[in-house]
Amino acid sequence: MTTTGKQIFSTLDADGTLTVEVAESTFPDPKPSQVLVRMEAAPINPSDLALLFGPADLENAEFSPGKIVAKMPEPFASGAKGRHGQRLPVGNEGAGTVVAAGDSDAAQALMGQRVACVPGNAFSEYALAEAAMCLPLGDVSSEDGASAFVNPMTALGFVETAKMEGQKAIVHLAAASNLGQMLNKICLEDGIELVNIVRKQEQVDLLKGLGAKYVVNSSDDDYMKQLRSAIDETDAFFGFDPIGGGNNVDTVFKAMEQVAVSKMTEYSRYGSNQEKKMYVYGRLDLGPTILTPSYGFGFTYAGWLLTPFLAKAGMETVVRMRTRVLQNLKTTFASSYKARVNLEEMLTKENALDYRAMRTGEKYLVTP
Amino acid sequence: MTTTGKQIFSTLDADGTLTVEVAESTFPDPKPSQVLVRMEAAPINPSDLALLFGPADLENAEFSPGKIVAKMPEPFASGAKGRHGQRLPVGNEGAGTVVAAGDSDAAQALMGQRVACVPGNAFSEYALAEAAMCLPLGDVSSEDGASAFVNPMTALGFVETAKMEGQKAIVHLAAASNLGQMLNKICLEDGIELVNIVRKQEQVDLLKGLGAKYVVNSSDDDYMKQLRSAIDETDAFFGFDPIGGGNNVDTVFKAMEQVAVSKMTEYSRYGSNQEKKMYVYGRLDLGPTILTPSYGFGFTYAGWLLTPFLAKAGMETVVRMRTRVLQNLKTTFASSYKARVNLEEMLTKENALDYRAMRTGEKYLVTP
Repeated sequence: MTTTGKQIFSTLDADGTLTVEVAESTFPDPKPSQVLVRMEAAPINPSDLALLFGPADLENAEFSPGKIVAKMPEPFASGAKGRHGQRLPVGNEGAGTVVAAGDSDAAQALMGQRVACVPGNAFSEYALAEAAMCLPLGDVSSEDGASAFVNPMTALGFVETAKMEGQKAIVHLAAASNLGQMLNKICLEDGIELVNIVRKQEQVDLLKGLGAKYVVNSSDDDYMKQLRSAIDETDAFFGFDPIGGGNNVDTVFKAMEQVAVSKMTEYSRYGSNQEKKMYVYGRLDLGPTILTPSYGFGFTYAGWLLTPFLAKAGMETVVRMRTRVLQNLKTTFASSYKARVNLEEMLTKENALDYRAMRTGEKYLVTP
Repeated sequence: MTTTGKQIFSTLDADGTLTVEVAESTFPDPKPSQVLVRMEAAPINPSDLALLFGPADLENAEFSPGKIVAKMPEPFASGAKGRHGQRLPVGNEGAGTVVAAGDSDAAQALMGQRVACVPGNAFSEYALAEAAMCLPLGDVSSEDGASAFVNPMTALGFVETAKMEGQKAIVHLAAASNLGQMLNKICLEDGIELVNIVRKQEQVDLLKGLGAKYVVNSSDDDYMKQLRSAIDETDAFFGFDPIGGGNNVDTVFKAMEQVAVSKMTEYSRYGSNQEKKMYVYGRLDLGPTILTPSYGFGFTYAGWLLTPFLAKAGMETVVRMRTRVLQNLKTTFASSYKARVNLEEMLTKENALDYRAMRTGEKYLVTP
């Protein structure tokens, strides 16, 4: 018995034509370790947008019901050679009801339950998901459970990473995001100091309203002074950046080094001995990262991704993190949405341009 | 009793004026842990040049006997605020004869001996050095022992770092340098694969003549193809770069990722799972480092410096490394010099412009 339903696909052709469309799809019976979930809610996260549209020119795209045809600019069209011609499903995470289960005990135990899952094709009426990765939601609704994985586990993962590396403070850029707000709550709960960097006064106010102690506005004239002062008070020589392109991280490294040098008694041509580390975990800016020679050799700039982190952290840590998420889904890990759209509405020009802008507090929820 | 002698000092004033001069200096009696060395030979390494001249405008400087007055361009003049007005000694390493020793057994044991040392003011007639860091040279001459520390320990440090991180292959940029040639010999001895990147055919020939298996010329039209092929054959996803500025490391990361992706069976929006790591250990190019979003999030770009590495590696490893250097000073760790200059000759326009160019195989030796 197979199930059919509608699903979103994103296809990039070798000539740079990107087609995103709703199409009828067939879902086979679950393998022993899998469940088939009737999807009820799925958030559109920045990581989904990278695959769905990337830097494609949506302003000048052709929009028809359930379909967008757009041009992908270079060097991104050629750069994504690995996906040329492939019809890719989209949607990391979501929640829904298990309507079929594989033969394994883990899968069978979920039959009929509402679960949060990470199927990779969450923008769909149905999705096959690994039972081991599903979180039974109990009486939590699918809307409340839809974002139970990516943002909560990433924010918790930052704090776990800090603890593993002996850090007691974190710098976070673009810190007013949904993820940033969760991180702020977790750090308050866990006694980790957090230096929030934002670029608007309203984001300062938002985070201060959530109890944040250090919020620095990069649009202020005295940004560097604010940043140095926050780093000096917190000893935050470690952080996370979702922007990627430009000199955001460079500026943070400079401020860290200036704080470290201000505490040195003797000049060293090599800069301070203070180790400074920044992880990049997103690409809100697809431009190149610029790192200037302004902070010696005691720095590390590295990529951070959830899946490899979870694999490295081990099952015990992952289970502990998931339990914490489930117990606090309506508080620490609550998400809010600007709008709800079905699969066809997701592909209208007005909606696509709106959620692709990734403005703070304006996340969309797909309710297939 | 104090000793007097000539010494080189480099002073950067707040207005950007750099003064490098030979001046009479007084050397106090050694502390218990120290020895006083009459310096006989000291190499001018790239790390010395950074402190001696940095990016100062030597072409238009004023040269008088034993003195250079030059302009330091921005942003480097303001950026080096920590050294403004300080009269800094120069010269990481060298060799000479111990003429006075502190009270400790370690210091007394070196009295009258020829040693290699790391005093930080090696461009001098005399220097105080920590006895624990001195290497007794036995019947090796001061000229042969002058470069016994920085390049040999750095090259060995790269291989130690690779082994500590579970790597069996190394990519090295600007690989025809004195340091690069040592690294090539060490890798051949230790069975570590080495991908040498150079930019001239004569450097290819030089390294091939020294038994290098993989030498890639970045000036060739098919550089990327050569590089991918070498990485593919060696599994070198790890390396060291002395250049710093520009897109050299970016290009290496791209090639590494392309090799990793070519082995994947399924497209991933996040790129390959292959961890790629490059250390920067020099600043031959003082421009910013450019890192493009072309290789996912599985990368690390970090600074590498000898002193913190040795501190982290621990005494046992350091002693093992030093013993290996001493036993092979005339073979694996031999250095060659283009010219010998005394302190005054070091500051003539002709010589300063020549050694500041840091051309491969054209290192100067200071014989005070």
